[in-house]
Amino acid sequence: MDLRPVFLVNGLLLSLLAAGMCVPAAVDALAGHPDWQVFLVSACVTMFVGVSLALGSHTRGSRMTVRQAFLMTSTAWILLVSFAALPFAFSELNMSFTDAFFESMSGLTTTGATVITGLDMAPPGILLWRAILQWLGGIGIIVMAIAILPILSVGGMQLFRMESSDQSEKALPRAAQVAGAISAIYLVLTAICAGAYWLAGMSGFEAVNHAMTTIATGGFSTSDGSMGHFDSAVMDAIATVGMLIGGMPFLLYLKTVQGDWRALGRDSQVQWFLIIVITSVLLAAGFLWLVNGYEPSQAMRYASFNVVSIITGTGYATSDYGLWGSFAVPLFFYLMFIGGCAGSTTCGIKIFRFQVLYAAARTQLNHLIQPHGVFIPYYNRRPIPEDVIVSVLSFFFVFGVCFALLAMGLGMMGLDYLTATSSAATAISNVGPALGPIVGPAGTFQALPDGAKWLLSAGMLLGRLELFTIIVLFTRAFWRG
Amino acid sequence: MDLRPVFLVNGLLLSLLAAGMCVPAAVDALAGHPDWQVFLVSACVTMFVGVSLALGSHTRGSRMTVRQAFLMTSTAWILLVSFAALPFAFSELNMSFTDAFFESMSGLTTTGATVITGLDMAPPGILLWRAILQWLGGIGIIVMAIAILPILSVGGMQLFRMESSDQSEKALPRAAQVAGAISAIYLVLTAICAGAYWLAGMSGFEAVNHAMTTIATGGFSTSDGSMGHFDSAVMDAIATVGMLIGGMPFLLYLKTVQGDWRALGRDSQVQWFLIIVITSVLLAAGFLWLVNGYEPSQAMRYASFNVVSIITGTGYATSDYGLWGSFAVPLFFYLMFIGGCAGSTTCGIKIFRFQVLYAAARTQLNHLIQPHGVFIPYYNRRPIPEDVIVSVLSFFFVFGVCFALLAMGLGMMGLDYLTATSSAATAISNVGPALGPIVGPAGTFQALPDGAKWLLSAGMLLGRLELFTIIVLFTRAFWRG
Repeated sequence: MDLRPVFLVNGLLLSLLAAGMCVPAAVDALAGHPDWQVFLVSACVTMFVGVSLALGSHTRGSRMTVRQAFLMTSTAWILLVSFAALPFAFSELNMSFTDAFFESMSGLTTTGATVITGLDMAPPGILLWRAILQWLGGIGIIVMAIAILPILSVGGMQLFRMESSDQSEKALPRAAQVAGAISAIYLVLTAICAGAYWLAGMSGFEAVNHAMTTIATGGFSTSDGSMGHFDSAVMDAIATVGMLIGGMPFLLYLKTVQGDWRALGRDSQVQWFLIIVITSVLLAAGFLWLVNGYEPSQAMRYASFNVVSIITGTGYATSDYGLWGSFAVPLFFYLMFIGGCAGSTTCGIKIFRFQVLYAAARTQLNHLIQPHGVFIPYYNRRPIPEDVIVSVLSFFFVFGVCFALLAMGLGMMGLDYLTATSSAATAISNVGPALGPIVGPAGTFQALPDGAKWLLSAGMLLGRLELFTIIVLFTRAFWRG
Repeated sequence: MDLRPVFLVNGLLLSLLAAGMCVPAAVDALAGHPDWQVFLVSACVTMFVGVSLALGSHTRGSRMTVRQAFLMTSTAWILLVSFAALPFAFSELNMSFTDAFFESMSGLTTTGATVITGLDMAPPGILLWRAILQWLGGIGIIVMAIAILPILSVGGMQLFRMESSDQSEKALPRAAQVAGAISAIYLVLTAICAGAYWLAGMSGFEAVNHAMTTIATGGFSTSDGSMGHFDSAVMDAIATVGMLIGGMPFLLYLKTVQGDWRALGRDSQVQWFLIIVITSVLLAAGFLWLVNGYEPSQAMRYASFNVVSIITGTGYATSDYGLWGSFAVPLFFYLMFIGGCAGSTTCGIKIFRFQVLYAAARTQLNHLIQPHGVFIPYYNRRPIPEDVIVSVLSFFFVFGVCFALLAMGLGMMGLDYLTATSSAATAISNVGPALGPIVGPAGTFQALPDGAKWLLSAGMLLGRLELFTIIVLFTRAFWRG
């Protein structure tokens, strides 16, 4: 296999990351904080490696093969995470490399699980770096979901191939154009969100940080108390809307901007997403009101914020829903798995897969009753090709197996049942906080053994790259060609 | 829809159940226990209803339609469970109807979860009745898996259609013949198992009871301490072998008896089953030995007995594996879901479905690497038809959804996380004991609220009838015809 195109892209992405490191360097320097040197040195190292890689593997713009694309995607994430961990490792926080890698992985995959305590006292550069990582990870995953995953046919993503590319003859330039337009929308949405937070009373620094991690559905905060630190109903509402926006397909925003006003409302994935969110919110709010005795308005506020935070995989917390009573733990556990829409910044299994599964199960049932009838499953008013169904169902199965292995591995390292299973779920679904007293919304992953942190880092990467992108590298067939 | 064939079969099965009630009646009468009247009255009521149903709906042996077969299967189980609950409700144990129905459902579905404490002091008739229910349920499910489910194409069971019927022109008489032969084998195996238990030191009554619940992989015992009551390594070994026998396809025993000596060894489902069992046993034994400090021989004894008991869905216990340490809870949790082979008395997802999923996922991976290659998934050296794959994958999905809904429902009734999720798992997989202090191997389901018992009963029925047999009745299409 010709590795040059792989190295080339990795080199370019590393250079981009190095440029990103200059922002916290500048902020720390302005704030008079010595960590600016750490960021500058990290940026230099990263830039050096990135430029060397890119220059050393210059090729004459040949097309990538599918196998090169798989390798490029996986190695790019691992390399970027490793270099993005440098500032954490060398900063005054004195994190071990395991912790730095975990935090960096959690950032770039927009998970939002943290090992850092004392965020309120942390230097501004580090806080900004965490937010930037999630923001870059968020746009990275949108571009991947539009430009790369449909071509790789990973876990049913080929469903979205037609929408993004098949109407045009020149797929690649068009993909680049679309990616550029969507990045602009992403930037504008983040700016609007930051403005709203600022108007609601956050400082400028807090507003920018939280806006970046809201639209990216990442969930890192500048405070140990997460959004609960501000205890503001208005900010909660802004965050809820921001997370919902981050959870819907960005391609549809582009269509809306281009004048197709009904693009969002017509999309069945968006419809299902909102129905699931509203049902879960009403369910949780009802319990908080009737069983826990909250005021109706309070119940709606806490229920909507926390349900949206979990289902979009953001992971902000305003209260420890683990203490809401026995209904909350299983509810939030399942919400973790669902995730938002494909083509958004969210993670998890994603709504469209449930739609495909539902359509397939429905067809199955009809077929059981009328064995000789012909039934065709539909998605968004289009028939679903058989290979997409098998692809989605395999994804579901492999997701289950990975979750089970991860939970079992964590259990064997001594974590209790709830901590092990919910950590596995939160990692593979890139949510952030898990459940229970140790790793719940009120805790951090700091106390876990190093082995567990590496396992969880692997789980986050697997989940973010839709499992198969990674697993395929471990097959003999891949390397034999 | 013509309901007469449905009523006819139900009537005949009820009459059979009534006949079965006479056995504990006789035993109680011989033992001088007043409960014999309860059994006799229950038998009369059941016989009356059964004979009336059968006579009132006599038809000229017309063939059943697929829809009639679905309705017959579901109603038969519900009716049989309801009438089998009568002796529990009216016996001196004074159980509520909820408890009686739960115990009866747990018996006929060969689950083995119990709400009765003080088994060691219980009248012999009741103990025998519980064992008979599991024994009848066991042979019932084998016959169903051979004769009915493949025709209904439930959850990929159509894979087994060819083996049992397509070589013969007259499918129905042949199915009856096969069912008869397999019932004989079932009886002989039970007798051998009873003899072995008796030689190992059980009383005749205990030996017969345990033999019936071993071969049926049911798990009811005559003692609150389950098999741990006897604390005998020999009996543990007999039970382990008996449960393994109960967990393999009975059709292959018939082939073996008919002279095809290699039928069992050649079957890929049996190979996978044994590989999974051996791996899990070694894993558990290794932990018991290295981490918990057991003697190697003790570690093997407890590991093999409990792993086999859980994976076959029997649910005997010799020790509370919940106390074996953090590795055991997740391990046993996942073993619950796996189950044994199709066409055996075991429940759960079953081995062949994992094989189909594995084959499909493998094909997927190959397809990702070589998008234009043609890859065909195989089961038992035969290509798997596309509809079987979709069918199996849908089963997997619906299983997950049912489990999640059940666990969430139990959580909302106030059960804690471990109790709720493991009870849901043990019910839908028809295992028996769950995990944790309340419903674990050392506890019973007695303390749960009535609503939870009804939910779990529904879960047991769903699991036993391979989900779709029940779910199909709740679709509009089924009733519109």
